[in-house]
Amino acid sequence: MQFLSDNAASVHPEVWDAMRAADEADAPYDGDSLSASLDEKMTALFGRESAVLWVATGTAANCLALATMVPPHGGVVCHEEAHIEMDECGAPGFYLHGAKLLLGKGEGAKLDPDGIREVVDPIRDDVHQVQPFAISITQASEYGRAYRPEELAAIRALADERGLGLHMDGARFGNAAAFLDLPASDVAGPVDALSFGFVKNGAMSAEAIVFFDEALADVARYRRKRAGHLQSKGRYLAAQIHAMLDGDLWLANARAANAAAAEIAGACGERLMHPVEANELFVRCTAAERETLRSRGFGFYDWGSDAARFVTAWNTREKDARALAKAVADL
Amino acid sequence: MQFLSDNAASVHPEVWDAMRAADEADAPYDGDSLSASLDEKMTALFGRESAVLWVATGTAANCLALATMVPPHGGVVCHEEAHIEMDECGAPGFYLHGAKLLLGKGEGAKLDPDGIREVVDPIRDDVHQVQPFAISITQASEYGRAYRPEELAAIRALADERGLGLHMDGARFGNAAAFLDLPASDVAGPVDALSFGFVKNGAMSAEAIVFFDEALADVARYRRKRAGHLQSKGRYLAAQIHAMLDGDLWLANARAANAAAAEIAGACGERLMHPVEANELFVRCTAAERETLRSRGFGFYDWGSDAARFVTAWNTREKDARALAKAVADL
Amino acid sequence: MQFLSDNAASVHPEVWDAMRAADEADAPYDGDSLSASLDEKMTALFGRESAVLWVATGTAANCLALATMVPPHGGVVCHEEAHIEMDECGAPGFYLHGAKLLLGKGEGAKLDPDGIREVVDPIRDDVHQVQPFAISITQASEYGRAYRPEELAAIRALADERGLGLHMDGARFGNAAAFLDLPASDVAGPVDALSFGFVKNGAMSAEAIVFFDEALADVARYRRKRAGHLQSKGRYLAAQIHAMLDGDLWLANARAANAAAAEIAGACGERLMHPVEANELFVRCTAAERETLRSRGFGFYDWGSDAARFVTAWNTREKDARALAKAVADL
Amino acid sequence: MQFLSDNAASVHPEVWDAMRAADEADAPYDGDSLSASLDEKMTALFGRESAVLWVATGTAANCLALATMVPPHGGVVCHEEAHIEMDECGAPGFYLHGAKLLLGKGEGAKLDPDGIREVVDPIRDDVHQVQPFAISITQASEYGRAYRPEELAAIRALADERGLGLHMDGARFGNAAAFLDLPASDVAGPVDALSFGFVKNGAMSAEAIVFFDEALADVARYRRKRAGHLQSKGRYLAAQIHAMLDGDLWLANARAANAAAAEIAGACGERLMHPVEANELFVRCTAAERETLRSRGFGFYDWGSDAARFVTAWNTREKDARALAKAVADL
Repeated sequence: MQFLSDNAASVHPEVWDAMRAADEADAPYDGDSLSASLDEKMTALFGRESAVLWVATGTAANCLALATMVPPHGGVVCHEEAHIEMDECGAPGFYLHGAKLLLGKGEGAKLDPDGIREVVDPIRDDVHQVQPFAISITQASEYGRAYRPEELAAIRALADERGLGLHMDGARFGNAAAFLDLPASDVAGPVDALSFGFVKNGAMSAEAIVFFDEALADVARYRRKRAGHLQSKGRYLAAQIHAMLDGDLWLANARAANAAAAEIAGACGERLMHPVEANELFVRCTAAERETLRSRGFGFYDWGSDAARFVTAWNTREKDARALAKAVADL
Repeated sequence: MQFLSDNAASVHPEVWDAMRAADEADAPYDGDSLSASLDEKMTALFGRESAVLWVATGTAANCLALATMVPPHGGVVCHEEAHIEMDECGAPGFYLHGAKLLLGKGEGAKLDPDGIREVVDPIRDDVHQVQPFAISITQASEYGRAYRPEELAAIRALADERGLGLHMDGARFGNAAAFLDLPASDVAGPVDALSFGFVKNGAMSAEAIVFFDEALADVARYRRKRAGHLQSKGRYLAAQIHAMLDGDLWLANARAANAAAAEIAGACGERLMHPVEANELFVRCTAAERETLRSRGFGFYDWGSDAARFVTAWNTREKDARALAKAVADL
Repeated sequence: MQFLSDNAASVHPEVWDAMRAADEADAPYDGDSLSASLDEKMTALFGRESAVLWVATGTAANCLALATMVPPHGGVVCHEEAHIEMDECGAPGFYLHGAKLLLGKGEGAKLDPDGIREVVDPIRDDVHQVQPFAISITQASEYGRAYRPEELAAIRALADERGLGLHMDGARFGNAAAFLDLPASDVAGPVDALSFGFVKNGAMSAEAIVFFDEALADVARYRRKRAGHLQSKGRYLAAQIHAMLDGDLWLANARAANAAAAEIAGACGERLMHPVEANELFVRCTAAERETLRSRGFGFYDWGSDAARFVTAWNTREKDARALAKAVADL
Repeated sequence: MQFLSDNAASVHPEVWDAMRAADEADAPYDGDSLSASLDEKMTALFGRESAVLWVATGTAANCLALATMVPPHGGVVCHEEAHIEMDECGAPGFYLHGAKLLLGKGEGAKLDPDGIREVVDPIRDDVHQVQPFAISITQASEYGRAYRPEELAAIRALADERGLGLHMDGARFGNAAAFLDLPASDVAGPVDALSFGFVKNGAMSAEAIVFFDEALADVARYRRKRAGHLQSKGRYLAAQIHAMLDGDLWLANARAANAAAAEIAGACGERLMHPVEANELFVRCTAAERETLRSRGFGFYDWGSDAARFVTAWNTREKDARALAKAVADL
């Protein structure tokens, strides 16, 4: 009964089928027809002209997207607990050639205009300080919180006022969409580029960078090759994304994961550190309580010394979720 | 009848099977048992302590390997037609933070000690010039030529004399091994790191960086994450490599590709620009002749204005190879 | 009556004389006899084998020093108000190729072992997080506070325990030495490299990077050239440093600046935000009070909305210091 | 009798006077009035709106200029013997974050449209190859050859056709201007940015980057700080440049150096490897002949095994030039 992370879950059968169907030899790299038709499918989904690049990881997606908006001497405003700050081994520093992450605060690992202003307003407009060029937000956030459309609009307005690009890390975009129950266009809001995650949601190795500005995509294509992320047989990545989009598998999978999380959340009561809006639960519990849970067969990570993190996935079994709920209630 | 490249060929059935078998949830990233057992398998294959990192592309493999040997202010000696110089969009400049490729000459895109000395000897030992830190060679070379063990030994001796690291780009390592008919250890020779290619040889998206020096691997692990190449579900990459190694599938596949190339080579006579030692043929022919071949259904790239490049793959059908041989003979 | 900064003060007459005396043509770059004899002079001063490189700015000195200790995927622990974090436009990100500053807290912009542990202890020892490779401290600190020898020893002990390099930004090293009234060796303590500042202290354009480890200096020589900091006529920089060291001009100048600061500090009482140990004063005062001071002819920077920063220099006139002291007392 | 290089020559008395006159305290960095008035003076000289940044070295000037035109994934076309390729320790790779130098051929280390086309035409317009973004030429070239206005116009036309920026390394711009006897505007021609060298021509430590496009200068100002090249007391650099421009000292100095070179050239006859258009002479002579010259007191560098390089400077004494001329004639 594994609640360690959604990033090790198995691959969805429809994704396997799509990959196998791509076996027929075709053009190398991204010259194949599956890769070529991603733009159209994403344009339909988001209702905005979209240029799509596949890559193998969210780290690559985030960094390639940001590299199109931020020069080496610039900065990116992000939350101090953002994945790009905490868990990518300095990848933004590598891809952006030393550009700086400018760290903001905000409840639930979400930024808001006030939090962003607290970061950018004190920056002197002189050459001694790194100037901001973009904002990066995470949907759902690192604590599983979803940005509402009006929140996204407010951030966009501030970005426009300051001339900043806007990027969304959507490693769990599907979970946010499932929770908000809104069209993808509202979940992404008016961002310039979206790292649309599929690996945590049933794919094997394909994430999409969706650019809503073709000029940015043009740059990213060179950067992707230069980063060794232009795979020879890109059609297998494109096939995964098609499978996830077709019939809204991405939504169905995310709904399943969210439902499992909701099941568990119902048993956590006051223990919850954050409202559960996606598929992650941060649950206060003592070391002894964690020991109890582990002895009963549940796998999860400690979250600091006084809490545990549980993550559900597209394939979390209902009975496992119920069992965990019960076990937490029993503590 | 496709002879464009081996890098778009389909995935071998045994590789598919191995990937499917890896579906069972396991640890994320490279914490799984398949990833963990690669070191042992490669150690057995090469007869030297090996530390293995999987990545998705040869570009990433080459650059991550070199980044462990060369500081940003250093240089890498390579052939002027090496893949890292010609076809990686400056990836070495990115991964090595501006380190310089120092270009040498040599027949068949192979370097030899004299060619290397021509590059490094004129470099003044002062701070105004980039100093060499490593040599990179390609096995088989960009013109499909294989380094013999004694050639590798001679390059190693020079590298040691000058204190240089030695890297091998083995995008078509299997084809070289099949041609030389020698143990893998002799085909790799005394290099410090090998980019062991599988994608052109029947895998989907897995290349191995084999380090014969654990200290280099330690650095590469951080660099891989930082480059966004540490995939969440790395077990699917490890599974591909296991499938390729088990029962020497990598050799069988390479032999098949080489045999198809040899079949065609037999018909090319004086047209051959380079002896055919692997699965690539560079064949002199006029534009009109190329037109003729294309009209007969053969796909391939022009090589400059007076030649064509044909590449066979693990799945090239014998009848297609024979057909091309006949078509060339008929010209 | 200028108290804006010490970094615009005029050049000391003895420095001018030394530069003029260097006019006689000699070897280019750092091949001249003045550059060559810096090692010996610094070795005598610090009582440790020293390898010295001149550069034109403190930013270059800091970054070149750190670049010898920290790989691109590494991190540098520094205070959150350190100059390298706040006022160098991301230069460490440039010189260290995206390495990360790991920000600590501490009174008076000084780090101590506890503050450093708070930064490094939570870093997971895995490839997802940037690992620390060095510590950088500022002597005197950005708030004009001096590290005592025992404080330096404690930081060194921690650095050794964790395998970290130790760098000192000594932009105002002279002011710290003048305050502590200890030998230079005690003021630098057991650091691996010191950015020994002279520009704020009477020189024109020369700072010294003093390496106490020849291997680091060897790397820095290439990096300096590569950064465009190896000046053609380096003897003019070396001459400045010699002039500053000869007869301990650096100490005399720093004492003069400190004395002026002490004079003013005596009048500030409770207004002082930090004890005055060097040549900077951070003085609480309202906007109206600052207006009053400015109307009386004093130049200085606001420090936030409720304070002013006054900096004295080697050439601050005693009467100006007295005048400012009186003006503050009169508020 | 030193003919090693012009880059170690003494500082011109008028430059000293100007520096001393700048001693009066003023604003730090480039906030002073001398720095501020450089734009106007260069605008007058070149007859084009000019934005000027001082830096300490030609390497920094070249690299900061190019960094404004070329993204990290781009390339710079330059001559294979250009200073940026041969003698800057990979500085372009550092400042341009791994961008690539694309090497062309051309007589006398000069590029022409055909030579440039030979470099850029074979570059496939795909993401696998580094695309050119700028051209860099050297006036006078590394072999002391001057570009004529019509040659510059032709290169500009090609640059425009291909959408490339155009940079001029003018380390010896004065020598080219003195030779061509044309207005500065014709000597620079229609470039986007000029590294206007003064250090080899009588200054101590100041070179100017002259941008003819304010947008490029805006970027360069941040990059300069970030590279540690924004000196605290920039007025001393600005003063040097003013002194060099006032009364056309830069031209007078260059004429003196050129005259000395011409004197020597007159004695070299067939020994000259390149026509002498500036202040450098490349003279065929045997090792024995070089030994003879050295034994007679002349200092110079070997140029390969069969030649010597002599460089004159603004302060080369007429009698020394005559003596060298005679000594060469006597060989």
